[in-house]
This record gives sequence, structure tokens and C-alpha cells, in this order.
Amino acid sequence: MQKGEPLILVTNDDGITSPGIQALVAAAASFGRVCVVAPDKPQSGMGHAITVNSALRVTPVDFKKAHRAYSCTGTPADCVKVAIYHLLDEKPDICLSGINHGSNISINVIYSGTMSAALEGALEGIPSAGISLCNNNTGTDLTAARFVTDLLIKKLLKLKSDLHLCLNVNIPDVGLNKLKGVHICRQGMGNWKEFYEEHKSDAGLEYLWLTGTFENFEKQSIDTDLWALENNYVSVVPIHADMTDYKQINRVKELNISF
Amino acid sequence: MQKGEPLILVTNDDGITSPGIQALVAAAASFGRVCVVAPDKPQSGMGHAITVNSALRVTPVDFKKAHRAYSCTGTPADCVKVAIYHLLDEKPDICLSGINHGSNISINVIYSGTMSAALEGALEGIPSAGISLCNNNTGTDLTAARFVTDLLIKKLLKLKSDLHLCLNVNIPDVGLNKLKGVHICRQGMGNWKEFYEEHKSDAGLEYLWLTGTFENFEKQSIDTDLWALENNYVSVVPIHADMTDYKQINRVKELNISF
Repeated sequence: MQKGEPLILVTNDDGITSPGIQALVAAAASFGRVCVVAPDKPQSGMGHAITVNSALRVTPVDFKKAHRAYSCTGTPADCVKVAIYHLLDEKPDICLSGINHGSNISINVIYSGTMSAALEGALEGIPSAGISLCNNNTGTDLTAARFVTDLLIKKLLKLKSDLHLCLNVNIPDVGLNKLKGVHICRQGMGNWKEFYEEHKSDAGLEYLWLTGTFENFEKQSIDTDLWALENNYVSVVPIHADMTDYKQINRVKELNISF
Repeated sequence: MQKGEPLILVTNDDGITSPGIQALVAAAASFGRVCVVAPDKPQSGMGHAITVNSALRVTPVDFKKAHRAYSCTGTPADCVKVAIYHLLDEKPDICLSGINHGSNISINVIYSGTMSAALEGALEGIPSAGISLCNNNTGTDLTAARFVTDLLIKKLLKLKSDLHLCLNVNIPDVGLNKLKGVHICRQGMGNWKEFYEEHKSDAGLEYLWLTGTFENFEKQSIDTDLWALENNYVSVVPIHADMTDYKQINRVKELNISF
């Protein structure tokens, strides 16, 4: 690999040893130089957490097919920040996060370490994508995910830099033959109905364990990632960091909060 | 306090012992019964992290003026989930997070534990607000923040339940006399230019420490929280969990990602 070839920054939230990031690096290495900066441990559900009031450690590691690789004690978002502001002396052409073992559609995007890392890349003007295979089992076959990843990298590398684009890509785990295509859409509305299991350790310490069931709030809509996944399409949703609820601004003005 | 009076759920990200949450509980207690569920340690920068693959512990604690209070080993978002799905047998009328010691305007909202807790309340159909005083010093005077909080609670309690409303409220730390009023607005665009300090422990372990400077990308706009704070107004921005970048959907379609 030579300077001049595209530089692809790769991270994830399942940790640097997960099969998903190995598949992603293998895909990216066919297109250019790969720099891996990934968490040293699983970071699922970390949302857009960053390490603000404690130390961060970064350690060079060997990673098959990667040009450079580092394990980081921080969150997925930390990994992207430390790559861009500390480790790299050139700006990556694209930033990829994944391949995540589990879905990041609908409301899951706000809890997703995978997507926070991709969004962090986009905030720096690097075309970025988080790629998720909708199966939590890390042993599942990654052939279809790898196929979609190759396609995606090709397209992203054609974009000019300084584009604030972040794609949330979710792949149904139905095998390549059953994938129907790509659905460019919006984030569907849904939420988790949570349940806390009550447990007790042998020493008598009580603790809770989160579980829950997902509810799709708009089963009739066809322009959502929820619909795509239920109908064997790969969903692609552009996301951004502007959380303003524009539709509510006038309603809030009517509350007449003033002094 | 009697059942029938409004139930106000209070949390924060600075931890259950911070002066900010004490001021918030004192304010809320004038309006109804207060249930506190807050992190047992500082959780600044935790974004929308939740505890998905480990145990959560919740411990009843005494808290001045609160009806019930619990310290929780989890994140701010965990605190709201565990309150609603495990600890409470009735739905809170409103959910308040703060008073945060530090600003949550502009891009900071995505990193904010304070705002993730408030958003979690709104996702459950509870009118919610995250309240931040724009000064990281926990010893700063909270008089102005308390005044704004009282005003806000009065307004929120008038709303009907099942409203998915989440307000990001930021108060400039200029003292009550200099506050010019309330500015209902959108999240302003800006980003952090990060810098990683390099340190070494006495034992020779190298570590990094995140620091950075904030850049306002739209100094000329007056409809932003950035403008409000710079001009001594309290900013109020409604936020939501839909991260879709609607303006980019057509651009992404033009990429022709297909197979």
C-alpha cells in the first residue's frame, strides 16, 4: 500500500477482536490503506459517549490486512476523534464503523456506538457509514454483509471529501440470495418496552439486568428502515447530528415561557 | 406530599451528590412529589449510553425534599428507564434532568448525558427538559438557574401527558439581573477542534487527555442556541430522537447504491 491510495479509517463498537471488524478491514483493504482504531473491549449501547474526565490509552496492535491498527481504551466516538486529531497526519477519505453484530435501525441509532463513530467521522467532513448485520450472533455468516460493504465502499470513495454524510446501513440476515436490494429511507419510529430482570449474586447482592421488546410504531409506512428490514432489503438512512425537533418550535413558542 | 399531586422524575449526569441536582429537587419539590433516580458517579459525556451487557445496581438513598430517591450504577438514560420500568408504579407527569454544570448547546447535545436522560423521558411520552447552567464550576451561584427552573416546571406541568416533548434549556451564567429573556430556537451548528494532551504516569504508562476548543459555524444566525447564549438569553430548543438527515435522502438516492 502506498501513500496516494485512499485512506480508510475503520472502527466499531463490538471491540477490535470481533469477526465483524475483521470482515470490514478485509473488504476495505481491497480499496486502499486501512487504519484501524477500535475499542479494546465491547462497547455496545455506548451511544455517543466520549471520554472527557479520564485518561485514554492507545496501543499499536497487529491487525491482518491493516496498514496501521490501534486498540483504544475509550468509546467508538473516542476512537474516531483520537485517529483524526492524534494518530493520523492526513485526513481519511472515508470512515467506516462495523460490521456491527446486531441491528441499528429505528430508535436503536441513538444508543448505537457503531453509529456514533460514523457520525463523528461525518462531523469532520469525512463521508462515513456504519454497517450493521441484523443478527447479534457474532458467529453468523458475513458473506452478504461483505458483499454490501464492498458495494458501499466503492460508492463512498467516489464522493468528494468535506462532505458531511453519514449513512446508517443495516443488512437483514437472510443470506445473499434472499436480499432484494437497497432501500434508501428514513429512520422508522419505534421504541423499546423494557423489563428489568431481578437477580441476586451468591453473596446476596441484588442487581438488575435490562431486557426488552421492540415495538414498531408505524407498521404501515414503507419509507422506513423498519419496513426495509422486514422485507429483506438493505436499509440506508442518512443521519446527522442536528437533533432539533423543528416541527415543535412553534408549539414551544405557544407555551409562552418568558420573564 | 400526597398521591394526586404531580409526580416529577429528576435525574442528572453530574451524579446524585452534585449541587445542581440538589437545586433542581428543591425547585421541583414546591410543585409536587419528587422521585430522584440519579447516577452514583459523574457521567458527563456519556451521550445516550445504556447498560446492555452488564448488571445494574439501584440503591435507595436519603435525599432532602425528595419523596423517594435512588442512586444507580448506570448512565443517565439508564436512570430514566429503571425509574419508569422498574421503580415507579405510576407514570411521572414530567421528567427533569440537571441542573447540569456546563453547557449543552449546539453539537454538545449529542455527547450530553443530561439531554439523553431528558430525551428518554420524552420517548416514554413524558414532557421532559434538560436544564444546564453554562458554567462547569459546580460551586457557581444557582439563583438564576433556579428562577428559570421554577418557570419551566410551571409551564411543563400544564401540558398534557403523552406528549413527546423534550426541551434543551441552557442558561448563560451571567446572573439573574443580566438575563435578557428566553429564546426559543434551533440547535446551532458548530464543532470541537480537539487536542490530545500526552502524559506519562510515574510508572511510565503513556496516556492521553482530551481537550479542545469549540468553533461556532454560524456566527451570523440569530435563530440558534449559540446566539442566545452569546447574547445573555436562555435558549430553549425542542429536540427529538429522529436523526434522519431528510435533506440528504435524495442525494443518497443519486449515489445509486444498488445490486
